[in-house]
Order: sequence, then C-alpha cells, then structure tokens
Amino acid sequence: MKRSVKTLPLRIALVQMNAVVGDVEGNIERIVARLGEVRGRGADIAVFPELCLTGYPPEDLLFRRSFLKAADRGIRRLARETAGIAAIVGFPEDGAEGVFNAAAVLADRRIVSTYRKIHLPNYGVFDERRYFVPGKETPVYSVRGVPFGVLVCEDIWVPNGPGMAMSRRGARLLLALNSSPYHAGKVREREKMLAARAKAYKAWIVYVNLVGGQDELVFDGQSLVVSPEGRTVARGHAFREEVLTVDLPIPERKVPGAVFVPSRPAAAPRPRMPAPPKAPHLPIEDEVFDALVCGTRDYVEKNRFPGVVIGLSGGVDSSLVAAVAAKALGPERVTGVLMPSIYTSNASAEDATALARALGIETLTVPIWAAVEVYMWALKEAFSGRAADVTEENIQARVRGNILMALSNKFGSLVLTTGNKSEMAVGYATLYGDMAGGFAVIKDVPKTLVYRICRRINETAGHEVIPVRVLTKAPTAELKPNQTDQDTLPPYEILDPILAQYVENDRSVAEIVRKGFDEEIVRKVARMVDRSEYKRRQAPPGIKITPRAFGRDRRMPITNRFGG
Amino acid sequence: MKRSVKTLPLRIALVQMNAVVGDVEGNIERIVARLGEVRGRGADIAVFPELCLTGYPPEDLLFRRSFLKAADRGIRRLARETAGIAAIVGFPEDGAEGVFNAAAVLADRRIVSTYRKIHLPNYGVFDERRYFVPGKETPVYSVRGVPFGVLVCEDIWVPNGPGMAMSRRGARLLLALNSSPYHAGKVREREKMLAARAKAYKAWIVYVNLVGGQDELVFDGQSLVVSPEGRTVARGHAFREEVLTVDLPIPERKVPGAVFVPSRPAAAPRPRMPAPPKAPHLPIEDEVFDALVCGTRDYVEKNRFPGVVIGLSGGVDSSLVAAVAAKALGPERVTGVLMPSIYTSNASAEDATALARALGIETLTVPIWAAVEVYMWALKEAFSGRAADVTEENIQARVRGNILMALSNKFGSLVLTTGNKSEMAVGYATLYGDMAGGFAVIKDVPKTLVYRICRRINETAGHEVIPVRVLTKAPTAELKPNQTDQDTLPPYEILDPILAQYVENDRSVAEIVRKGFDEEIVRKVARMVDRSEYKRRQAPPGIKITPRAFGRDRRMPITNRFGG
Repeated sequence: MKRSVKTLPLRIALVQMNAVVGDVEGNIERIVARLGEVRGRGADIAVFPELCLTGYPPEDLLFRRSFLKAADRGIRRLARETAGIAAIVGFPEDGAEGVFNAAAVLADRRIVSTYRKIHLPNYGVFDERRYFVPGKETPVYSVRGVPFGVLVCEDIWVPNGPGMAMSRRGARLLLALNSSPYHAGKVREREKMLAARAKAYKAWIVYVNLVGGQDELVFDGQSLVVSPEGRTVARGHAFREEVLTVDLPIPERKVPGAVFVPSRPAAAPRPRMPAPPKAPHLPIEDEVFDALVCGTRDYVEKNRFPGVVIGLSGGVDSSLVAAVAAKALGPERVTGVLMPSIYTSNASAEDATALARALGIETLTVPIWAAVEVYMWALKEAFSGRAADVTEENIQARVRGNILMALSNKFGSLVLTTGNKSEMAVGYATLYGDMAGGFAVIKDVPKTLVYRICRRINETAGHEVIPVRVLTKAPTAELKPNQTDQDTLPPYEILDPILAQYVENDRSVAEIVRKGFDEEIVRKVARMVDRSEYKRRQAPPGIKITPRAFGRDRRMPITNRFGG
Repeated sequence: MKRSVKTLPLRIALVQMNAVVGDVEGNIERIVARLGEVRGRGADIAVFPELCLTGYPPEDLLFRRSFLKAADRGIRRLARETAGIAAIVGFPEDGAEGVFNAAAVLADRRIVSTYRKIHLPNYGVFDERRYFVPGKETPVYSVRGVPFGVLVCEDIWVPNGPGMAMSRRGARLLLALNSSPYHAGKVREREKMLAARAKAYKAWIVYVNLVGGQDELVFDGQSLVVSPEGRTVARGHAFREEVLTVDLPIPERKVPGAVFVPSRPAAAPRPRMPAPPKAPHLPIEDEVFDALVCGTRDYVEKNRFPGVVIGLSGGVDSSLVAAVAAKALGPERVTGVLMPSIYTSNASAEDATALARALGIETLTVPIWAAVEVYMWALKEAFSGRAADVTEENIQARVRGNILMALSNKFGSLVLTTGNKSEMAVGYATLYGDMAGGFAVIKDVPKTLVYRICRRINETAGHEVIPVRVLTKAPTAELKPNQTDQDTLPPYEILDPILAQYVENDRSVAEIVRKGFDEEIVRKVARMVDRSEYKRRQAPPGIKITPRAFGRDRRMPITNRFGG
C-alpha cells in the first residue's frame, strides 16, 4: 500500500441533532439545513445519528409499509442535496431480505452505498431483532483518499466487532452513527469503551450521537472524536443540538476494493475553523437535571402541548418537577396547583407558594375538602361498620388527580406527575391519584437523588430556589394526621440501595442480605416491589436516567409468584 | 434399518396443564400429580407444555440468577419422580453459552437429555431473543424402540424446521411442547400447519399446549395428535386442563446414535383406555367467550382476589363483562355497582338491574350527582368564562372510577373495566374514569363482536340473560343529554373493519380507502388511533383475543408525527 501526506486534513462535521419520530419530512428539513451549514464550513463529510431520518426508536411504525416507503423516498430526496459534500445518514432500509438499520453514504447527489448494522441489540430498552435483520458486509470506503468504515451504534460496543475487519482492510477512520439512550454516568462508560476500540482498531473514531427526548428515552448527544491512541480530542455538549467540526490528519492510503465516495471540489477554499469543543463532564446532579429538562421539553414540544400543570404539595418531589418544568418551558408555561386538604400543614402551603414565587410560576388554589366529604357521604352506607384505612387516603389523592385532569382537559395543558423512583418501586403512590398525568418527570429518579439535585439547584443558583425547609422536614404524603413516609417505608438512605440491588441489579433477597442489609426489611421491600407491578403498568411514561428504568426496560409479569 | 412390529403401541399422555408464572414449587406439585395419574394409565411417556416448570412467559424473571437456580433445582427434583415413566418437561436451562428455552427428557429418575429450542420468536407478543440463545442440535431419541424427536413451539411453525433433520435421521414421532397464545380462530390455523408438517416430515405429531391465563395472554390448550397423513386423531378441549392418552402404532426402528430413553417396565400390565377426545371446533362467539372467562378467572385466582366489582351502566359492554365474571367466578363473587347521574335514563337503570338479576349477582347503588356538583363548584373560578365541553363529561366518568376504586380498596375486590377494543382504539374512553381498574376483560374485543357474543349468550341460555333492549338501543356513554356514540364515531359496522385494517394489518390510510371506505372517515379514525396511544399506555391489562392486541403486541411511540 502506498502512503502520501495530504495537503489538507480531512474535515468532518459531527451533526449532533434532534429528530422527531415519524416526522420524515421535518427531519429531512432539519438535515438539509445542517448540510447547508457544514458545507459552508468546508466539511468533506457530514455524519448524522442512527435512524435520524425517521427518529429513534420508531418502534412498530417499522411494520407499516407506508412508513418504509416514506423513508425510502426521503433518503432519495436527501441524496439530491449532497452536491459538493458527502453525508452519512441513518435510515431504515427496506431490502429484499428484510429491513436493515442502515447508514446511507450519500454524495454527488446520489446514494453511493449503504452500510447495514450488524449487531442488533435486543436487551434493555432495545427490541431491534423485532424489526431488523442483521447486515453482513464490512465495506471500506474512501473519501479524498482516506479509507474509512461506517458503524451503527451496537457495532462499536461489541469487542472485536465489524470495526476490526474494516481496520484490517486498511480503514484508519471509523464513523459511528448512534442513538444511544442516556443514563447517569453513561458518557464515561462510552468514552472508556471508545478509547479501547480506537486502540484495538488503530483508528480514529468519530462518534455522533442523537440528542433529545422521545417518550421514555432521552439522548444526550456528547458526541466524541477519539484518536487511535485512545485520546478524546473533541466532546460535544450534553442535551443540546450542536455541530462539531474536526480536521483529522489522516494520511491518504490506497485500499484495494474501497468504495469511492466523492466529496467537495479539492480546489475549493475553506474557512479556518476554531478547535472543536471539549465539553467538560458534568457533576451527576447537573447531568440528571439537564436530562430531565431535555426529556420534559421534548415531550411537551414534540406533542405540542401549550404548557403544563403540576400539583404543588410543598414537598421535595413536586418542587423538583416544577423547577425542571420552569427551566424546560419557561415559567410562563407552568401552572402550580395547590390543593389543600384538612391535613395540609401551613408549612406545606407556605413552602409551595415560596417555591412558585422563586421559580416565577403562576399558582392556583383548589381546596379538596368538600369533594372528599361528598365521597365519604356517598359511600357511607357501603362502608358502614368498616374502619378508616388507606381507602380514605386514596380518595384524597384521587380528588387531586381529578382536579388536575379537569384543568388539563379544559385548557389543554399536560399534567406532570411528581412521583419518584423509590415510590414507584414500592407502590407508595395512588393509582389515578398522584399517579394521574401525562408525563412522570422524575419516575426514574430515586428519592435520595431527588434531594441531592434539589440541593444542587440551590447551590448553583446561589439562593433558595427550593425552600430549605422542604429539604429538611420529614417527607410526608399528608393524607392523614402526622403521617410521614417512614411510617410505612424504611429510611430512603436504606431503601434506595436495596432497590438498586433488587431492581437494577436483579439480586435476590439472600444476596442483598449478604451485602449487610436487614433481612426483614429486604424481604418486605422485595415483596412491595413485586406487588406494585400492576400500578407501574398504568403509570405514565417518564424519563429513564438509571441503567434500568421501570417500563420497557424491566418487563416483569404482574401475575408472578416468584418470591426470590 | 431393521423394522419390527411392536406388540403394544406406544402410549403417550398429553398433559394439557395450567401453570403459574414464578411458582416453581407449585408447578412441580402440579406436574408430579399428573405424572402419578398418567403412570396409572400405563403411559410410556408424558409430554408437558413449553416452560411449564416456571410458567409462560416468565419475562424478566429470567434475568434473575435466583430464578434460574430455582428452575435448575426444580427440574432435578422432578427427574427423581420419573421412576417407571418418561417425561418431557419444558424449563429454562442455564447453560454455559446462555439460557436455553429447553425441554428436559426425564426418565429413570434422572435427566437423560435436554432439547434446546432452535427458533426463538421475537415478534408480536414474543421477546424470546431477549432471554434465550438458540439451540443448535437436532437429537433423535428412542423410547421402547420408537425413534422420536422433541420440538419446542416455534420450531414446529417454521417450514423445513428442525423436525426435518430429525425425520431424515429416522424419527417417526415428533413431540412438540407449546405455550401458544390464543387468538380467535388460531386453532384452525395451527391444525392446518401441523397437517402440513406431519406430511412433510412423514411423522406423527403430538402437540401439547399450555392452558390458562397469564396477564394479557390466554392459552387455549386444544392439544392435538396428527397422523403422518395429516389427519387429526385427537383434539383436546379449549380452555380447560385435560390429559389426553393416545396409543400410537409406530413401528420400532433402530436409529444409529439415537439417545436411549428408558420407560415403564415392558412386562407391566396397563389398562385399556377409551379413545382420546376429539373436541369439536367452537363457533367464534363461544370460543372468545370461553377465552374471556378463562383469562378473567386466572387473573383473579392467580393473584388471589376475593372477588370483582363492575360498574353496570345498562350498556352492552358492562353486561358482557358481568356475564363473563359471573361464569368465571360464580355470581356470588361479583358485585355490580350502579352509579346514576342526572343523565342516566330509567331504561339504563332498569336494564342494569335486570341483567344483575338474570346473572344472580349482587348490586349496589351509589349516585354520583353530588360529587359532580362539588367538583363544578370547586372549579367554578378556574373555569369562569369557559363553555362546558368534554371536561365535564370526564369528571362524571372519573367520579365513577373513584367510587369503584374506593370499593376495591375497602373490600379488596378487583375492579373490572368494561371498555371494548373499538373504544380503546379511538380513545373513546376516560383515562382514570371508565378506564380505571385492574383488569380490562374485553379491551381486545371489537364492539361488533361484543354484540355478537351477547346475542349468542342469550341464544345458548334460551332466555334473556342480557336484556334485549341493551342489544337494540343506540349505544351511549350517557355523559350529556341525548348523547350517542355515533355523535363522535362512525357506526361500529364501519369503524371496526377500518380498525382491523389499520391496527391489525398495518394498512395505510390510502390502502384502506382503496378497499372502499370513505377517505375522510378513514383519515379521522387513523388520527384518533394515533392520538390515543397515551391513553392506551395507561390502560389496565386485558385479554388478547385478536391477532394483534394493543399493548406488548403493538408497540407504538406516543410521540409520533407519522401521518400515514
């Protein structure tokens, strides 16, 4: 093989973009706009995220022939926009053997080639074997004399994956298209993995990730460029659209059989570009807060809600949700609703009001005592001779749910629910009560992390956004006199680590006890988790921020007698 | 190969049993009891359903090591129960390469061998690639000189599947273990497929199917024995536990390398057995009714609810749900709740009462007008200047939901919801209102089929179980004066076929219009279906009876701008 030193380094644009599922036309417009921008920057090749033509994940839309046809028309139309630049765009390819999770190599106004994802993840939140057949080929391409390979997401995660074959054939650059869902701290994991692959494949890795929220998933962007030595030379920002332009000094090299990819005219002048960003890693509290903001904003905007309503209890959960919403949408699109009962303390009402004032959101007060009384009267005969129990508590929670839903129905706003992951796990929530709403912002955030994020919000703001009393008083649902969460649950500092072991790590009761937890408590917690599956099944969607969220990520039977 | 005529035909017991997911101990007891029974009948070999040791589908329980260990201990314990009989039992096998969906060949108090499912379905309701690695071997076994093969479910559906290799090696008998979820008419499809396979493989096929309900799935049993000519010689009954004993005149034959499976002592006497049943195919209305009864009974019993409560509106949906519940649990465990509002007609109250009397179920009346008034009063200020709309209708539905849930909380009964598939599809239902409850019995039954089943119930009973007026009056939610469903929806005779095309067959609007439907109506219906995804996501589980139910069977994004 002959080597020569290039006059100009290869200029690559990483288009870290937000796509909308199903909105093929809209996504094309977004892609075309970015193409124009990076052409102006003199990029040789623009790399877009996995399946960005259709949004990710399109789920069972992939079974509709009309959807696949729209994608096919779309990618052809997009090809015509590639005069003077090459582009790699993720799209579903309807092939003779089945549908492929593919990356189109577009250049010179045509589809030069497609790469088909080989490793299809079918674990966690992924169902790719449901939709796609795996590709088999590991082609090497050549742009401006530089041999490169294309990979799609899981392909790069697998050790000794298709990148190895491409590297052996001479590729010194791998362009990886991704729609990699976020969880807290995943970026570090990803970066470590990419460093290992870059070294093993002796190649530059350009890792482009989707950004934005789609139902329960949020994509963090944080696109990366890693050198063959495993050094990160560029890192995009988390949770925002961004285009990174990098110049890579990769020598030209002739690779027999490499597919030629035309690009911009060699003689065309190009602007000097500033160094690409190397965004710092964020503290976990900030990272999760930004994830919640991004997921909430996109759920609201992509589904075109005018605004949101939130029941404000004066507790830490609703305070955090309100803070997220105010940041995501602006305070003017957020309404806080105070719904006092006879058990609501003055402190709670004061704290809720202080929070709303600090965030600049409007409030509304709708007392619930009269409605609760009427239910008790209507059910008096049916309940005669029975003692008060959780039934009466649930009625209060459900009246509040009804008020919020009525406001939603009348004004079109989305109800944000305020339950956290610890509550969702053990079922410490009322179905159709505090669980009633369209989007559950913090459903995957354990209670102890809720506190940490709230403290961090105050710290960052430099003043009391969330009233300090909210963070110091004992957590309570205020559904009966002098109630606290710890009447029913172990302290959250004990509950949360048990839940992490049981829910996220699939540990048995015996294994968790061996880690030093009290057996009776562990057994009780495991039983509560198992018995609450029916509630979680009817919970609204919410943003996944842990390695295993409830929902599609953890598919448990409701009818289940396993006690391990 | 040498052939000889056997003195006694091979006696096979098909154990069409009900298993409980996660209840390994209980399932072992059930299996051991059946083994004793069929040993007494002189069976050489007993065949049990797919994964019957753990119940099917165990879903993410399969990720728990403690669960796999329990299954491992269980299958070893079961092996020790096989003195004097061979048994084939489905279980998850934790192998070095991963977990297999396996069938243990047990005999002589030990595990002789395991067959590992080769074809893992990952479509529709199935996620088997999430859990299992595929087997690769196609062993042939020999019991009393008869060579046979073992297959697990999907293995037999695939044309030229592993049965072909087994047949080529000399197997003249294939024992297929199944947990094949029901949908209306599937038994005919299954039987046709088995006839084709039996002919292609020139082998007897013994097809044993699970029976019973598990969350959204119901398994119909209807086990089959098919001759090499494709003739059905035995057919088990639908939706009940049953043991079929068949004597198959298959000649002995030496197959090199066949795994020897010991069985009962050759000299032991055995009783003469009556011919196995050949249960008739049922009319679709009866088949679906029985499926609903089975699914409801098992959800209630396996989750140990004392009984159920149902809101009775005097309409056709709640009438059918009450009839199903009374049949499933006995009328004494069913409570009908009448919740009249100012819009409830006398006819509705009379019809609900007449139905309850005919079914023999208890009723309770809780009027809702006062609660509705209080909400309107509490929201008066917030709603000032706004016209009445669907908000006020939803408040009524939600008060009813709250009443039912309060009764459930106080007495421990399960709330059965009464929405049908047509309503679920277009979102003609109130979230947390009529959708509130633990189990949605008819959520997969289109409205036109609801009517057919109700008429059939009366026809079979020979008298008016469901008042005739319920079947003839215009369907209405009675949430405002003189309301009927057709104010909002096209007639159900038009709506249901459009829904079947759009939801079950993935047809586009254009394709449906080409079948002769009005474009404006089709477009409206498709839009309603797409926009109601968020409601369905929070619906209770219900019994799948069509080829594609909502839920895990149809995984659509909520955020979705595809308009095709």
